[in-house]
Amino acid sequence: MSRAKVVGVLGGMGPAATWDFCQTVLRLTPANTEQDHLRLLVDSDPGVPDRHAAMRGEGPSPAPHLVAMARSLVDAGADVLCMACNTAHMYADAIRDGVSVPFIDMIESTVQAAVRAAPDAATVGLLATTTTVEAGLYQAAFARVDRTVLPLDAERQAAVMDLIFRVKAGHTGEDVRAIAREIAREPADAGANVIVAGCTEIPLVLNEEGCLVPFVSSTEALAQDVVNFAFSSRG
Amino acid sequence: MSRAKVVGVLGGMGPAATWDFCQTVLRLTPANTEQDHLRLLVDSDPGVPDRHAAMRGEGPSPAPHLVAMARSLVDAGADVLCMACNTAHMYADAIRDGVSVPFIDMIESTVQAAVRAAPDAATVGLLATTTTVEAGLYQAAFARVDRTVLPLDAERQAAVMDLIFRVKAGHTGEDVRAIAREIAREPADAGANVIVAGCTEIPLVLNEEGCLVPFVSSTEALAQDVVNFAFSSRG
Repeated sequence: MSRAKVVGVLGGMGPAATWDFCQTVLRLTPANTEQDHLRLLVDSDPGVPDRHAAMRGEGPSPAPHLVAMARSLVDAGADVLCMACNTAHMYADAIRDGVSVPFIDMIESTVQAAVRAAPDAATVGLLATTTTVEAGLYQAAFARVDRTVLPLDAERQAAVMDLIFRVKAGHTGEDVRAIAREIAREPADAGANVIVAGCTEIPLVLNEEGCLVPFVSSTEALAQDVVNFAFSSRG
Repeated sequence: MSRAKVVGVLGGMGPAATWDFCQTVLRLTPANTEQDHLRLLVDSDPGVPDRHAAMRGEGPSPAPHLVAMARSLVDAGADVLCMACNTAHMYADAIRDGVSVPFIDMIESTVQAAVRAAPDAATVGLLATTTTVEAGLYQAAFARVDRTVLPLDAERQAAVMDLIFRVKAGHTGEDVRAIAREIAREPADAGANVIVAGCTEIPLVLNEEGCLVPFVSSTEALAQDVVNFAFSSRG
């Protein structure tokens, strides 16, 4: 039996979401003993230049930093890469171009998971950073599978962003979870047939129990694809 | 202000304990924003040769693997190293000899934390793997601060080992937590003034609420020392 692939994780955006992703990989791995688990190489670097400032033209592009991180993970032994942050997928092409190993794309994993979770859903409620929304990452990916992302008005989008910053600041208690459930209710009331947590901070305070329609976590979608891929070519 | 130090983590022994350690570092870091957190480079490698088999002379020494892991983390940018596994500290000297950066020793961190948590305690109840016990890691370190580790009889030590394997297999539910509390009660009943979780799987199912005397987690003790050290020379 050949070994499973070594998984490199570009992380730190933010760190709580990174460890949640790693734990989700662990939970989704079919394993009876320690030795059955995947080897993960993780660079949790909160010093990646701010994606939101870059989008607004107020800071440097994170692309060179992310490409250097990706190459360092490959140098350390990663056979496949992934990144536990949706917004940073604005720079996914730069990462793909910068390394010779596969990059498992969180946006694609999430869209495919949403199609599986709600095969008949036409309208998607997206909870993501304002930068992810403005970059159109999910709108483009869902359009390719004939689905429409329901736009949030500015006030509701600001509430999502406020929630994400609370989680990034370490607040994940019941008060913040109640806010998350309230925020998730609105797109469902407005006609969304599936709620997509297109930001890795969201699943830290929201799960399917808080939603009126099927809920898809980008963290879990990527973790499942990573596990499947890492074990796929064991012979 | 100079940047905080980059922390390299030798992990995967087991992986659940590794992510728990990383989350504990996060929790103990004074931070208001994502950017305030430490950069962690983590190699979570469940393929490190089995420490228990090596101790029994039935498998290869993990030392070369751990030294290679340590060097790779330094090559990737780590300024300081630590290892989220007590038993593997049998090979701490090999790691220290193999790299030129500081190695923060989990056994030492835990002993110092136990002295702070229970300044007058003379007798220590140790919950650790049989290999850690047989290697005498904690007995030697506690002897240097004039404390005695209470020996467990073979049956009780086997129960601790069974608990650790349950946690490594992913079982951390209330049934396993109840067993952990029961196990922790026995050394306290036998005269221990402090309970030390000298295995990183134990704090996943036991905390101070489950103990009759002060409880010290090796995971938390190491994480606190890592945070203190990483920020110590920011000027």
